Formats: sequence, C-alpha cells, structure tokens
Amino acid sequence: MKIFETSKAPNPRRVRIFLAEKGIDMDYVEVDLAAGENLTAEMRAKNPTTKIPFLELDDGTCIGESIAICRYFEEMNPESPLMGRTPLEKAQVEMWQRRVEFHCMLPIGMCFQHTSGYFKDRMTPVVEWGKISGENALAYFAELNEHFKESTYLVEDYFSIADIILLCAIDFARVVKVRPSDEYVHLLSWYKKVSARPSYTA
Amino acid sequence: MKIFETSKAPNPRRVRIFLAEKGIDMDYVEVDLAAGENLTAEMRAKNPTTKIPFLELDDGTCIGESIAICRYFEEMNPESPLMGRTPLEKAQVEMWQRRVEFHCMLPIGMCFQHTSGYFKDRMTPVVEWGKISGENALAYFAELNEHFKESTYLVEDYFSIADIILLCAIDFARVVKVRPSDEYVHLLSWYKKVSARPSYTA
Repeated sequence: MKIFETSKAPNPRRVRIFLAEKGIDMDYVEVDLAAGENLTAEMRAKNPTTKIPFLELDDGTCIGESIAICRYFEEMNPESPLMGRTPLEKAQVEMWQRRVEFHCMLPIGMCFQHTSGYFKDRMTPVVEWGKISGENALAYFAELNEHFKESTYLVEDYFSIADIILLCAIDFARVVKVRPSDEYVHLLSWYKKVSARPSYTA
Repeated sequence: MKIFETSKAPNPRRVRIFLAEKGIDMDYVEVDLAAGENLTAEMRAKNPTTKIPFLELDDGTCIGESIAICRYFEEMNPESPLMGRTPLEKAQVEMWQRRVEFHCMLPIGMCFQHTSGYFKDRMTPVVEWGKISGENALAYFAELNEHFKESTYLVEDYFSIADIILLCAIDFARVVKVRPSDEYVHLLSWYKKVSARPSYTA
C-alpha cells in the first residue's frame, strides 16, 4: 500500500498528519508535478484525474481525494478516531470540515491559483477574483477567532480532522501572504496548540 | 426534531432526497431568506452562520451543512446506507462526493452567484469568473459522461449520496442555463435513472 503525493502541497499534508495522529506507517511516493510525472499513461491508468494525493492499495485499487483517503483509514483503523466518536460528533466534525474547507481552504486556494500565475498554462486566472478570495479568507479568520473564544478545538474539546484541514490551510495561506492578524488571540492560541503536536512535522 | 430550510434552494433538497431514500419522516420549517427570516436574533442563536439547511434536535442542539445533517442520520439510522457499506466503499463514496461537490456544484454555484446578481448586496460579483465557472461545469459534464460509460452510478452499481449531490447540482444548473449536451448519452442515461426514483420529488 502506498500514497502518491507531492510533499510541499497542502492536501497531501492533511493525510500525513492524519496518519501520524493515528500511528499508521505509510510508504510515500513523491510525484513531480512540474515535470508532469502525474500525466504519464501509467499514472493516468491509476489516477485518471491526475490530482494528488492518491492511495494505491495492494490489489491495485486507487482512491483519490485527501479526505476520502482519511475516511478509508478511519474505517479500517477505528482506534484514535479523528472523524467523531458518536453520531452527533461525527456530524459536528463533518460540519466543521465543510466550513473550513469552503470558507478557508477554498478561498486560499483560489487566491493562490488566480494571483500567483502558478497554473496559468492550464486555467484562466482572474486576478480580481483571486484578491477577493484572499480577503474572504481573512474575513473568515475573524469568525474563527470568535469561535475559539468559547471552544478549544473546532468541535469543542475534541481534536479532529477539521482542525487538521484548518491547520494545513493556514500554513499554506502564507504563500499568498494571508495571515491571521495578531489581534486574533483565540485563533492564534488554537494554532499554537495544534502546531505543537508531534504530527505537525509529518 | 426539525429542519429549517428553503424548499427552492439546491442544498436543502439533498437532505430531503437523502431522508426520503432512507424512509425517514421529518418536519420542515420554511425560512424566507429574501425577507431576512434567517437573520433574526432568535435564528442567529440557533444558527450563527445564517445558512440553510440546519437541523434542530429535540434538545436544542443545531447542526448546519447539508452533508453533516445526512451524516447524522446515516449514523443514527444505518439501514439503507447511502454513504457506503464497507470501508473501501465509504472512501469511494467520499471521493465522488468531493469530486461532484468541487467540480460540479461549486462552479455552478459560482456561476449563479457571479452572473445572476442575486446576492449582489452581500458580495462583489466578478462576472468573468462566473462565466468561466459555468464553462468549467460544462467541461466536467464531459468527464462524467465518460465515467458513466462504464459505471451505473458514481460508485459502480451502488446508488449513494454522491449521486444525490450530482442530481441536485444538474437540476440547479438550469437556472444559469448550464445543461448537459444531448451528445452526453451516458450522463443523460444516468440522469434518467436517478430522476425516476420516488425520492426525486421530495
């Protein structure tokens, strides 16, 4: 079993942190996207979307999408659950996963795609939209700061995959110079806590 | 227990179809967004994001986000599972959920938000981005058509929540005149099958 990934990209990092938290060892295969290693016929046969990361099981079955890979290991290795322990908590984790995905990682990713020019050969960047997206992410940091006034993690005192998604998004946001302001003390206190976990460097 | 929603919006419809497929009866409370009924102090206390749908449990706990609500009922009522029956299938459902969410519903929603002017008092529409988003959704229909050449539903022969998300996205896309071309016979054949299910009118 192995995971094909690009170690510097934000979404593979979610999976590495998730597996480190669960104590699961994994073989990682580095894919050089700039050199087009994800576009070869052999790689497309495994992973038609060409996006990373993807997991290849020993029987050759491949699963794409970072959170789908996490779901597989959550179900196969239910100890140290990171996606909720009760039906209500599973719903609350999913609620926060979606909020930080759509209101934080998505605008940060859009800001990167539309202002950096990194993917300009495979898309039409709209710089104005990229800038608005960066501002939307910053505005969401203010909402998160309010949330962490009352709550240790995104779901009360339970560290979950939602925190991992947010952590990876905030770290990636530095690339486009989007950073939580110093006045967001509750958000920064959460950040200090989650980035001190041993999984942070996975 | 009740769900606050707006019956014409695409995301509440996902939940209604999901619950109909599982045979779960529900009380629905219609919220008039245009009249700002979601913005009252009473409603914000239940649902700070002001987005619909949200579920209110009998003890007053509220859960937002359509898919988080579905997750709650999948866990509480595991019969007729729609989010996968095995660890691998759960991962495959999640993979397809994310693909149709990010490559279909998201661009259709962006096209609506940025070209219709519907939310122009609470965002800055970027018409160029809206148009590109509509084209991106159309391009993804071509990929889906290829997929349905080999597969009855998104996850092989298993009807799942991923099909519900795609169905609601395609129906909503009519609002912005984004429709699968007649030549996409495999996608249209899938559409005919899923829209013939009794849950379609939920």
